[in-house]
Amino acid sequence: MKVELYGLRLPEVRPRDNLAKMVADAASKEAGGIKDGDVLVITSKVVSKAYGFLIRLDDVKPSKRALRIAGKTGGDPCFIQAVLDNSDEVLFILPFAKLVEKDVIRIERMSRNIAGAYEAIKRIPYILIVRRGGQIYSDAGLDFSNHPEGVVSVPPENMDEYAREIRRRILELTGRKVAVIITDTEMWISFGSLDFARGSSGIEVIHKGFGNLDLYGKPKFGGVDCIAHEIACASALLTGQTDEGIPAVIVRGYKYVESEESISDYQLSGNAMKLAVKEIIKSSINILGFKWLFKFFIR
Amino acid sequence: MKVELYGLRLPEVRPRDNLAKMVADAASKEAGGIKDGDVLVITSKVVSKAYGFLIRLDDVKPSKRALRIAGKTGGDPCFIQAVLDNSDEVLFILPFAKLVEKDVIRIERMSRNIAGAYEAIKRIPYILIVRRGGQIYSDAGLDFSNHPEGVVSVPPENMDEYAREIRRRILELTGRKVAVIITDTEMWISFGSLDFARGSSGIEVIHKGFGNLDLYGKPKFGGVDCIAHEIACASALLTGQTDEGIPAVIVRGYKYVESEESISDYQLSGNAMKLAVKEIIKSSINILGFKWLFKFFIR
Repeated sequence: MKVELYGLRLPEVRPRDNLAKMVADAASKEAGGIKDGDVLVITSKVVSKAYGFLIRLDDVKPSKRALRIAGKTGGDPCFIQAVLDNSDEVLFILPFAKLVEKDVIRIERMSRNIAGAYEAIKRIPYILIVRRGGQIYSDAGLDFSNHPEGVVSVPPENMDEYAREIRRRILELTGRKVAVIITDTEMWISFGSLDFARGSSGIEVIHKGFGNLDLYGKPKFGGVDCIAHEIACASALLTGQTDEGIPAVIVRGYKYVESEESISDYQLSGNAMKLAVKEIIKSSINILGFKWLFKFFIR
Repeated sequence: MKVELYGLRLPEVRPRDNLAKMVADAASKEAGGIKDGDVLVITSKVVSKAYGFLIRLDDVKPSKRALRIAGKTGGDPCFIQAVLDNSDEVLFILPFAKLVEKDVIRIERMSRNIAGAYEAIKRIPYILIVRRGGQIYSDAGLDFSNHPEGVVSVPPENMDEYAREIRRRILELTGRKVAVIITDTEMWISFGSLDFARGSSGIEVIHKGFGNLDLYGKPKFGGVDCIAHEIACASALLTGQTDEGIPAVIVRGYKYVESEESISDYQLSGNAMKLAVKEIIKSSINILGFKWLFKFFIR
């Protein structure tokens, strides 16, 4: 069994560009065209560029709340306002600079330009982890990099719709039936970043193998590979190489299950997220005792 | 740019089998042999099988603590003891059955065998999320599936060492210089499962791009792709198809950075994990107010 990943170089993408056509053209050059059964993976950043989802921070007027948060975090009030404008709820605060200071995040293992790293951290000392619809984002997914000073890109809000739209256009342009996944990069404390599927169309998102019988006839606890995220991570091997200018990847030879389900079918509501945290805390106290709770407050 | 993934079918692996040789033989059949610069990905499960890391639960004598936890969770005391034996610390409890009952985990979206799914959940109603060395595991990584009733496999403790050993043997057998990654599947609430790199040898684990200058000369916040996990997820597209019997994958054409760093270089100590949680709670209360804390306790 063999799966192939083709990185697609695109010219600089600008607002109102025809992204589907640019991808189809690149596929002709670099992957022998688009074929039936391909999975087309596109970074959310390039979708934001094509649809013009860019914010000039100078145009943002910070609210009292943004000013108060900025006063405590030392961040830019306009940027914080832009994060709040693009969030439904702030879930918690990740004190990035503090975790670097305390050596939990070991920045020297993630950087060959330590001075630049500290400059970047000074600009974003705290990260707001927010809920946006049913998805979790750091700083609402706003992204400074490779934009002029003072400009950030915003991920599109319902990425399933954009995935569906691009899939439809690819069919019109090429006559080929593909699945489309739109991805976004999220950073992890101390473990680097991974790419996640934020929108999809035409592919079963999660393998439905929970409870299937194993070789010994026992029902399986598991068997629920998140295919969409796995494809996002596979593609990140190519799109992550920013110097190469590869914002799209064709995954060929992977036999996915065709489906009209999409990423939003697996999203948790804000209440469900809070309920999950509550139930975890309740069970942990109940089973491990109250001393479990204190472990996080007392050294 | 093109990357190829070759799934390697292996015969049933048994204790004391020569795993490196089995992989090299399979590569000859299915990938034109092993080549310089290949990344060889192997599931921890097949490593456990080859090295005989299997537990018969009948042989395990539950301690008072395991009996107490089992009394509260309804789980099997012998299994819980085996989890405790293979953990350094219980971090928290994930009440899986409860989250299914409360519709946070929507099991019907992950299963085509609902009766089997509920039987599997009845067997494991609560999951112990534990620290094992510097890594986090659910139920210490113990795995029932595709073993006879009452037998579980245990992931090897220092997987970097096994990765190094397999890499060395591949070099001896074939004369080829490869990198090796050992992977393990971990489940996520409601989002299915992903594969993670638990051990590695010969490859830079995380891209060191934090603080690099972007196209506009601004230092980048990010640029830290976790290459090892991305490769693990890419390979899961092939190994996840359990019916195919593919426990190893060759990733070819990906230009990784050769390095003697490994997964354990990025592990957090137990204290660092707790410190991170504490600092997140402190910052969230400080910046969002005490009402933030109550949100999780009051509906």
